[in-house]
Amino acid sequence: MSERRAASDAKTLWTPDEFEAAIRAVGAERYHDLHPFHQLLHGGKLNKGQVAAWALNRYCYQSAVPRKDAAFVSRVFDRQLRRDWIHRVLEHDGHGEDPGGIERWLVLTDGLGLDRGYVQSMEGALPATRFAVEAYVRFVREEPLVVAVASSLTELFAPKIHKERISGMLENYDFIDDDVMAYFKKRLVQAPNDAGFALDFIKAHAETRAEQEACVAAVRFKCNVLWAQLDALHHAYVSPAWIPPGAFNPETLDNG
Amino acid sequence: MSERRAASDAKTLWTPDEFEAAIRAVGAERYHDLHPFHQLLHGGKLNKGQVAAWALNRYCYQSAVPRKDAAFVSRVFDRQLRRDWIHRVLEHDGHGEDPGGIERWLVLTDGLGLDRGYVQSMEGALPATRFAVEAYVRFVREEPLVVAVASSLTELFAPKIHKERISGMLENYDFIDDDVMAYFKKRLVQAPNDAGFALDFIKAHAETRAEQEACVAAVRFKCNVLWAQLDALHHAYVSPAWIPPGAFNPETLDNG
Repeated sequence: MSERRAASDAKTLWTPDEFEAAIRAVGAERYHDLHPFHQLLHGGKLNKGQVAAWALNRYCYQSAVPRKDAAFVSRVFDRQLRRDWIHRVLEHDGHGEDPGGIERWLVLTDGLGLDRGYVQSMEGALPATRFAVEAYVRFVREEPLVVAVASSLTELFAPKIHKERISGMLENYDFIDDDVMAYFKKRLVQAPNDAGFALDFIKAHAETRAEQEACVAAVRFKCNVLWAQLDALHHAYVSPAWIPPGAFNPETLDNG
Repeated sequence: MSERRAASDAKTLWTPDEFEAAIRAVGAERYHDLHPFHQLLHGGKLNKGQVAAWALNRYCYQSAVPRKDAAFVSRVFDRQLRRDWIHRVLEHDGHGEDPGGIERWLVLTDGLGLDRGYVQSMEGALPATRFAVEAYVRFVREEPLVVAVASSLTELFAPKIHKERISGMLENYDFIDDDVMAYFKKRLVQAPNDAGFALDFIKAHAETRAEQEACVAAVRFKCNVLWAQLDALHHAYVSPAWIPPGAFNPETLDNG
């Protein structure tokens, strides 16, 4: 393609359907359901210590979500948009009677024999996990609002992975039961609502092709945030495993 | 006092009572109930246009409060603290059935004959108002958490001013009724709870004299944020009035 042609294309706004297709193509190419670690996790190929390593690291991501959503709300001048977004913070942190998603995640780590204080301290998490997660919080705090919204759109792809995870883990691991999978069951309902809202928002508010492409790049960035966490887990905990200094060692887990 | 003595004093932690007294002393010296504009406002000395100018500018502050509280939440790693703080966002923005404090403020500006779109656009607000308000949001986003909490402590002094305002404005202005004062009545209950929580928090978490002094300085900063808004109003709208270019002009208000 000539440079002239490329410059011309860059100015053509995608239709809403083309825009959505470009977003969805990112998921088909690089959502973390494709990562070999998830295939091991869902296929029952990991031992309890390896699943614990996953849950302990993923806690860092879960516990960062309300901070990134509050960071988003803190930048929004439109009261209605703040009202439409704040429930994400409440659903993760809990509110009133609802214990919230992070509490449900801790039920999972409890079930894997991990000490709550240790999980919440994040001391045993892989440094690469923390770097990836905080890059996401930083992204939402600093990027243009429409791009920040787009970065949440991996939720479009989440229900499929959650269904696979619930059935795969319940079937394959005797240390996993319905109670500890409560987090994912709840997200089966919450994620599609949130993703639909965010998709409508970016369709309405990405007003140039450059903004649309920045939204697609945001979904790619977010897929990288998720993928990098699994790369780090795979490198540290799947044979031949290279656990970095100070990170959780599955051999310390009480298997009694 | 010798330098040696000053350095020694600087290292001595205040007792909780001394610390609270230092915080309260800031209010006694420079809370905006002492500002001549408030004395005019509460004493019935302003006309409807001048009260409208106050309400229109103060809207900028009200509408920034949920952003500053979300900015605070976005920095907190402790889930319980996030849960304890998030209600401030909900109370201002509204949540579920509760229309929220900003909506109650708009009932006040409605009652003064101001167009909602104009108020919410903030186009007629004084630049100095916006600068002061955004300085507060920035402060809470960037300063140490305990110092950010301390900056909310002007709420310790708010119930007195709200009581004066409710009785003074109802008594003195025929364009003010119970409905439009609903915001302040609600804050008579909310502010003391919030202030008590924040005071307990800084007593528990300011662990050095330097941190305690930074908390006192935060209350002084916040008083300046409030005072500067009234200085700007007084300069622009009280005789001899100097309305800056583009700001709300009371003569445009429909007095019918």
